[in-house]
Parts: sequence; structure tokens; C-alpha cells
Amino acid sequence: MATNVTMISFERGNPSLDSFPVPQIKECVAAILDSDSDTILQYGPVAGYPPLLTIIGSWYGVGQEEVLASNGSLQLLDLLATLLVRPGDTVFVDEPMYDRTLTTLRRHQANIVGVPVQKDGPDLNVLADKARQGAKFFCTIPDFQNPTGVTTSLAKREEIVHLAEEHGFWIIEDSPYRLMRYKGTDVPMMQPLNPGRVIHLSSFTKTLCPGLRVGYMVAPANIVKAVGDIAVNTYVSPGFLAQGTAYEFCRRGWFEPNVEKLRDLYRPKLASIAAALRTHLPQAQWPEPDGGYFVGLTLPEGTSTADLRERGRKVGLGLSDGRGFFSAGGGDRFLRLAFPALTVAEIEEGVIRLAQLLSET
Amino acid sequence: MATNVTMISFERGNPSLDSFPVPQIKECVAAILDSDSDTILQYGPVAGYPPLLTIIGSWYGVGQEEVLASNGSLQLLDLLATLLVRPGDTVFVDEPMYDRTLTTLRRHQANIVGVPVQKDGPDLNVLADKARQGAKFFCTIPDFQNPTGVTTSLAKREEIVHLAEEHGFWIIEDSPYRLMRYKGTDVPMMQPLNPGRVIHLSSFTKTLCPGLRVGYMVAPANIVKAVGDIAVNTYVSPGFLAQGTAYEFCRRGWFEPNVEKLRDLYRPKLASIAAALRTHLPQAQWPEPDGGYFVGLTLPEGTSTADLRERGRKVGLGLSDGRGFFSAGGGDRFLRLAFPALTVAEIEEGVIRLAQLLSET
Repeated sequence: MATNVTMISFERGNPSLDSFPVPQIKECVAAILDSDSDTILQYGPVAGYPPLLTIIGSWYGVGQEEVLASNGSLQLLDLLATLLVRPGDTVFVDEPMYDRTLTTLRRHQANIVGVPVQKDGPDLNVLADKARQGAKFFCTIPDFQNPTGVTTSLAKREEIVHLAEEHGFWIIEDSPYRLMRYKGTDVPMMQPLNPGRVIHLSSFTKTLCPGLRVGYMVAPANIVKAVGDIAVNTYVSPGFLAQGTAYEFCRRGWFEPNVEKLRDLYRPKLASIAAALRTHLPQAQWPEPDGGYFVGLTLPEGTSTADLRERGRKVGLGLSDGRGFFSAGGGDRFLRLAFPALTVAEIEEGVIRLAQLLSET
Repeated sequence: MATNVTMISFERGNPSLDSFPVPQIKECVAAILDSDSDTILQYGPVAGYPPLLTIIGSWYGVGQEEVLASNGSLQLLDLLATLLVRPGDTVFVDEPMYDRTLTTLRRHQANIVGVPVQKDGPDLNVLADKARQGAKFFCTIPDFQNPTGVTTSLAKREEIVHLAEEHGFWIIEDSPYRLMRYKGTDVPMMQPLNPGRVIHLSSFTKTLCPGLRVGYMVAPANIVKAVGDIAVNTYVSPGFLAQGTAYEFCRRGWFEPNVEKLRDLYRPKLASIAAALRTHLPQAQWPEPDGGYFVGLTLPEGTSTADLRERGRKVGLGLSDGRGFFSAGGGDRFLRLAFPALTVAEIEEGVIRLAQLLSET
């Protein structure tokens, strides 16, 4: 293969650069500095920029005291782990799971127990069985899961909430991809099913852009207060320039049209990767997602994604190592393909390269 | 006293609202979005916005790999504690010390050992004595210390660096007020005295504004790397909109003139509080600072700042409770007065109210 072949990478869950509404963000940041620089540029409330909290609260039908906005939603998971997890405490997670969730929970020395993700969500026989021994929380990504693309069915969501209530664990409903639905209809969130038991996390990373680092939590007021008490002794107050910009973007009514624009941008990309996989990689198994950023493949027995990754590098194909998404071994045959940052043409070419690599295994 | 008396608060170490260069910040954020939105709005390097790291490195004469910029410098202290402190590990701190440093280190379950601050810096007889038992680091604020206002002499800085080398502990040189010198001449930093032993922390909070939340660390490359590895699993990447704005502000040559403007703004305030204390509170003892945000008073025996605080509230005087700045008890007679956010007239009136309260003790 030519050495100057263009690299196509399925590795990083980054949005497409052409998705950023740069002129609108410029207008918003200028407007918020005009209207409220005294708040934006000063120290301020640790829970976040109050007008933004009001808007987020209105989305979820909760009061401002049940919302906290931070520097991205991973920061919130870290604060929640500081609050809830002591070394050795058991936590449940989807298996496979977003790798940074695993590394963050490992740093807090949690006993991480994986609950296998099936095509309609976590395996509840496993969850019900493990739940009898108790846990601090179940961290799950119910919408277009990272890394599998799976959406949890309503029946399973209801049962998870039921199990959490019965066994006294929190649900951390991590839902950054929820609005990135390209087909089908929404499944209700778990948060309104039992607001006293669910800590909902989301962010503006997938609906606006990652660089702002604005994530938020919707949770019972006592959890918001306790997380705020830790946050104030971690970073004093969050980034108000970014939060004010996100607020202004919403206030102007630009949020929903932007989400619509992103759906239109990514819908053909999902269609493209699904078609390419069906055509070129019939031997792979994958639940077809209705949205989000990822398709999660299980490759034929005997395949090693670590080996594919190594060989992929040499032919201009960037692949992630599937083992990083598993809490306690496994994942050799698992491959997460992130598609939003690629063009439709790159997606098809990338899948062809992947099929070629596999045929050489 | 009239119930509608205006509140004068010496509590919070906030800059004055009229110190924020709002039009310049607006220009900078617009410019950075014009020139580099692809970097600013995307996920990016955990160590911070690279052009900003280059500028900070040039200030300290170090390479970009020895600099990490985060969401404020308290976040860096938290990351450093995660890296260096296991429960029960001994750390040295100035006594009294910035209260959020203490609460952050307590959360990490450090064994906090205070080193009394004298008028020329930490008591090195105490440090030398305690150092024999070992410690992870000495966290000290050598310039216009929070909460005492003290600046550590060059002789003591050299001796601290010597003790750190001899006994194998890190120095965390927390120096956010360093450029806020209103009279006298700079004392050399500890960082260049022994770059392999000193972790220098600073931020744009006092030189530009707090709301941006841009703090930074200058440290050996292996420490920068290790802190970055924790940070990426805490917040993925820091706030680039703010970091890009700070970069653009520096690139345009606006940083030094802004620091000069701030010195001119705060110099008369320091002179005013010093004069008012001499006139109205001759019974208090305090080292006269040459800069920074604080004057630290020791009040006559029998005084309780907790009691003063309570009574102050009723007469429109906001005071902090001195005990919060001490790691293991004490501080009943200690009072930190933060003056930058007040006008010269408010400062004098506030000191008169304080003298009146004390006379009623």
C-alpha cells in the first residue's frame, strides 16, 4: 500500500469539525459578556451559571436546586465517585463500557462488576443476581450506548429502576447521546421514572461541541448539594464563560435547530456504516443503532482486535483495542467503530480496509 | 445601627469587578474563535491549549512538556494530591493556610502538619525538625501569603529548597499573587532554584479574572505527564475557550499592561487598609504586606473572631472565621482581611466598624 495513504480512524468519539456552529458561538459569547460579565468573569456559584441551571431544570421538569453543571460530565462522575465510593465498594457498569468511566472508577478503587449489554440493554438476570450482594450504583448508558450503540428498552428501564429501589442502589443514567437519535422514537428516560433514585448525567458535548466542557447532572437536591460541597474544594467554580455561552445559545432558541442539524449531518453516516458493514463484513455481529456515535462489532472467533489495531496502523486504518471497554478481561473480539468525524466516503473506504485486514487474518 | 446600612465584607478574596478588562476579553475570545475554532471547540490535549503552554513555558524558561494548564489551580492541587498522597501520608503546609487547600488535602486524608508563618516566611526550625520524619510535599504560598500577606525571604526560600532536597519531599510553590506586588522588589521564585524539586502553581485568576478558571503548573516533565494521565480520566480536556482567550490576551501584549493596571488599582487600597489599621486598630498585630489580597491580623488575647463574625453580621461587617485557616485547631484570634473588592472609602469605614466591635468586646 502506498505510504501516503490517508489515515481513516474509527478510534475517537469526536464530533465532526464541520458540526460546530462557530459564528453562533461567537455571537453568544459576545452577548453574554455584554449582558453579564460581572457574573461570568468572577468567582461564582459552584453549581453552575444560574440561568443555565434554570434552563436545564425546565428540560427535566425539576428545580434549579436539582441541577449542577460542571466542566464536562466525566468530571461529574469523578465527583460522584468521590462522594459515593470507598475503596472496595461494588459498583455495577454496563459491559462493555465507555473506557474512561472504567479508568475513573478504577482510580477510586471501586470493585467494578460488569453487567453484559444485550441488544435491548443490560442483562437483567445478571443484574438481579448481583444486586442481592449490594452496590453503590449502577452506571449505565441507556441511549446509543458507548461502545455498543444499544438502546435499553422501556421494559428493561422500568425493571432497572425497580431493582435499584428494591436493593437500594443509585442509578447513574449517563445519557450524552440521547438527543442524537437519527431514526425511530425516543424511549423514556429512567430519571422521571424515579427521580429519587436516578442521577442523570448529560452534556453539551454532543449537542453543541466538546471544547466548551459543559456537562450537567440532574439529581435529588441532597446529592446536588453534596457534590457541590466536594466541587467547591476541587475547582472553586466551573467555567462560566462556556456555561454562559451555552445558556445564551439556548436562550436564543438555537439549541433545538442545532440538534436537528446534527441529526441531519450524522444520519447518512450511520446509514453508510450500516450498509458498508452489511456489504463488506457479513461475518461480524452488531446491533444496529438508531443514533449516537458508535457501532459495536463482535468479530468472528479467533480474531484479536489488538492484532487488527497493530496491522491497521500500517494500512491507514485507526482502530481501538476492544479490551479497554471491559472491566475484567475479555473484549478480544470487540471492536468499537466511531463514525461521526468521518465522511460517508471515508466510512465506506474504512470498512473496506477493515474487511481486507480481516480476510488476511 | 440602621438596618439599611451597606454591608462591607472583608471575607472573600475576590478581585474588584471594575478590574475586569471586558472589551479586551471580548476581542480575544472572538479572535481565537476566528483563528482556531477547530482546536478550541473540539476535544484536545489534556495538558492544555498548546500555544498557551508555549507562552507560559517562555515565562519560566521551560519547555511545553513542563507545563500543564487546568481549570483553575485548586484543580491542580487536587490532581497532585491524587497523584502523591495516600491516606495517612504527611504533608506540610503553611500555618495559617488558604482554607480550600486544607479542605482539599483533608479530603485526600493527608496527615496535615502546619509550619507556622513568621513575618519573613515559614518557621524553618519547625520545618527542619518535622522534615526528619518525612513528608510527600510542603505546600507553601511564598508571595503575599494567603491568609497572612507574608512574603518569604530569599534566605528562607533557599533553605526550604535545601531541606526538600535533603529530605526528599516536593515543594508545591503556590504563587497566584506573585505579580500583585504594589511596592518593593521581587524575591526570586523557588522553582528556578531547583526545578527538579519544585512544583510551581499559578493562575490567571488574579492577573486577568477568576471566571476564566485558567490555572497552571510548571513542574518536571514526569510530574506533568503523571498529572495529565489522571486529568484525562477526570475531565478529558480543560476549558479551551478560556485558555484560548488567555492565550490571545498574552499574544497581543495585553498581559503586562493589565498587571500594571491592576497594581495601580490595588496599591491605594493596600495603603488605605494599612493606614486605617494603624489609626483605628493599634492593638492588632500584622505583618505589613507588599502586595496580594490580604492583611492577616492577630487580635488581642481574649478575642474570638468567631464571636466578632457573628456580631459583625448585625452591623454590616463581613468577617471570616480565623479558625478555618488552621490545620489542627487555633486561629481564634486570627482575622484575614481581604481588601481588593472594596473601595478605599469602604476599607476605612470597615476598619472603623471592626475597631468599634473590638471595643465592645
